[in-house]
Amino acid sequence: MSRKPMADTTHDYNKRSSEAHKRYGGKVAITSKMPLETTEDLSLAYTPGVAQPCMEISENVALAYDYTWKKNSVAVVSDGSAVLGLGNIGPEASLPVMEGKAVLFKKFADIDAVPVVLDSQDTEEIIQAVKMIAPTYGGINLEDISAPRCFEVERRLKKELSIPVMHDDQHGTAVVTLAGLMNAVKVTGKSFKDLKVMINGAGSAGVAIIYLLKHMGVDYIVVCDSRGTIHKNRTDLSPIKQEIASLTNKKNTEGGLADAVARCDVFIGVSAPNVLTQQMVRSMNNDPIIFAMSNPVPEIMPDDAKKAGARVVATGRSDFPNQINNVLAFPGIFRGLLNARSSEITTAMYCAAARAIADQVETPTEEKVIPSAFDSNVAPAVAKAVEDLARGN
Amino acid sequence: MSRKPMADTTHDYNKRSSEAHKRYGGKVAITSKMPLETTEDLSLAYTPGVAQPCMEISENVALAYDYTWKKNSVAVVSDGSAVLGLGNIGPEASLPVMEGKAVLFKKFADIDAVPVVLDSQDTEEIIQAVKMIAPTYGGINLEDISAPRCFEVERRLKKELSIPVMHDDQHGTAVVTLAGLMNAVKVTGKSFKDLKVMINGAGSAGVAIIYLLKHMGVDYIVVCDSRGTIHKNRTDLSPIKQEIASLTNKKNTEGGLADAVARCDVFIGVSAPNVLTQQMVRSMNNDPIIFAMSNPVPEIMPDDAKKAGARVVATGRSDFPNQINNVLAFPGIFRGLLNARSSEITTAMYCAAARAIADQVETPTEEKVIPSAFDSNVAPAVAKAVEDLARGN
Repeated sequence: MSRKPMADTTHDYNKRSSEAHKRYGGKVAITSKMPLETTEDLSLAYTPGVAQPCMEISENVALAYDYTWKKNSVAVVSDGSAVLGLGNIGPEASLPVMEGKAVLFKKFADIDAVPVVLDSQDTEEIIQAVKMIAPTYGGINLEDISAPRCFEVERRLKKELSIPVMHDDQHGTAVVTLAGLMNAVKVTGKSFKDLKVMINGAGSAGVAIIYLLKHMGVDYIVVCDSRGTIHKNRTDLSPIKQEIASLTNKKNTEGGLADAVARCDVFIGVSAPNVLTQQMVRSMNNDPIIFAMSNPVPEIMPDDAKKAGARVVATGRSDFPNQINNVLAFPGIFRGLLNARSSEITTAMYCAAARAIADQVETPTEEKVIPSAFDSNVAPAVAKAVEDLARGN
Repeated sequence: MSRKPMADTTHDYNKRSSEAHKRYGGKVAITSKMPLETTEDLSLAYTPGVAQPCMEISENVALAYDYTWKKNSVAVVSDGSAVLGLGNIGPEASLPVMEGKAVLFKKFADIDAVPVVLDSQDTEEIIQAVKMIAPTYGGINLEDISAPRCFEVERRLKKELSIPVMHDDQHGTAVVTLAGLMNAVKVTGKSFKDLKVMINGAGSAGVAIIYLLKHMGVDYIVVCDSRGTIHKNRTDLSPIKQEIASLTNKKNTEGGLADAVARCDVFIGVSAPNVLTQQMVRSMNNDPIIFAMSNPVPEIMPDDAKKAGARVVATGRSDFPNQINNVLAFPGIFRGLLNARSSEITTAMYCAAARAIADQVETPTEEKVIPSAFDSNVAPAVAKAVEDLARGN
């Protein structure tokens, strides 16, 4: 994986971003919600008055959701091991991304999110650290923790904490992908459950997409990693990939990407640049759907995919139609969870979130199966869908 | 220790504080320093531009102080084991106080402080948790962690982290106490180093005061705990108190508070209400100095101390002159440390901070040996003093 960001010679975003971060001194600042001007203000916000909410919470811990920022706070937690296209750059170097995530939570869902970057990449140490700080927050957003450790970290924290835990690289991506697919089948007239789906990449996003599609009843899924299709005869599979092998590729297709994608309806790329050729697209079913999410260079450029017959094309980029952007998911999901004071997040909530995102596009077309990342109606709709489920409505 | 806050029937602060905390939903909110309105804004604050500061930090970790909130952030860390007069109430219940501390950091020193409350009271687990999250912040403020664990927690973190660590209940209190004493000796014409000091209470604050006064050359110090004077013949002393016994009470005075305070110049109370009688004050040297910091009910009420001949009286309360309030210390101290990007805090910096606080009172009088907690000149002066030392000036 390249360690240098793509040179952006058009807009010089890279150089200007460093300058901006230096000028502002980072992105996250805090502010007081309560006034602090007079002695009276301080006697309510701090001593002696503050002893009262403390005492009440000590007698009923749920009151922390009434009296403290726990009702509105999310920790964006990373060890810096899988950041953007840079890979394993460590905790301090991941801070600009984690601060960015925090301010996006604030902008899109008015959530008070803060970065928490960790000084170890040991699975148990990460789990223990998050468990230790968990009383502080209403939810945990895991970010940029590399596979396969991220699966165990998330699994254990979901089990052992009483606040929701979501690894956005997994489920945010999966939710928005599902939303796009829900509309793409409308546009192409395909049947969702009958889709033949090929997923290139078995990392965080790929694994989460597999599970979500299976939950939604998609039966035909073939997955490739860098060595080819994941099938039951392979002897080199990690535990996660063994599970994938048991859940997918029922025909035990062997070979590479070209073999896997032939005659499929959907190509989902969460892998590497330029691996999908026009010939491969032509080998797919009629009206193929191409979600090429390798960023910044997709598995195939949209124009090339279209030339080869693709009906609906989505990428991770903002300069093409149908941007699969996790910002459509994570703010609204956590907003709904916090509103409901939910102790967990479920697959049903992910599906409901995807439906809410998809439904924001009133009339899907080839060029619009996903709402714009800036559409301010999305987060509230997602929040409502998740909150309703969390409240048992 | 009483678990119920003092009933405040005059102003009803307790009830109104709970109502205010509920109305506002806690105190800390976050805000974005960088604009996030346009695609261009997002391309600088987030992808693709943000990859650049990330990459630069990965090649030079000190740049985190240029590009991220690390340059301005402090974690207010507690396990909720020693909160106000409520004692051990646990992490969630301590949040209103920790949020309060955070917004005071912001108000007085423009520091972006956030609460971090921990789900264990085990010394090693606390140390490990803070080490794990330390890359996120420019400094750590330990708060309301009970003695004696707080001493080991702070000692180990100071040793093992490369950012400053301060337990405010120890050193904030000690710094402001020292500042008050520096001016009290001017008012009474006493010699600082010749002061005979009696300290009632050997918890966090008491221990820190002992070390700071010894560093400042005070030779005669006698300390009492709940069982009487700490002296070398006692067989029941914890390791901390054994060290205190070796550093203080050279005459090996035995007995109780009355025996200890007789013929002293200074009484420093960090203990319990109403334990210092007028007779005890009369038994002290001429022009006795009384710092009665048990809060909300001091060891002796100021009027009673004055009737018994006290020259300078300070308490922890805002409704009497000379309030010993840690807010005079911790914002400016951390402001100076962050400005210098200091990796540590030293006793010399504590002394410099105390001098800066004391010097804010141009002409000390009996009724004014300490600046007002609202004096906005204090934090910048403290910051400058600490920053100069941290920079080696």
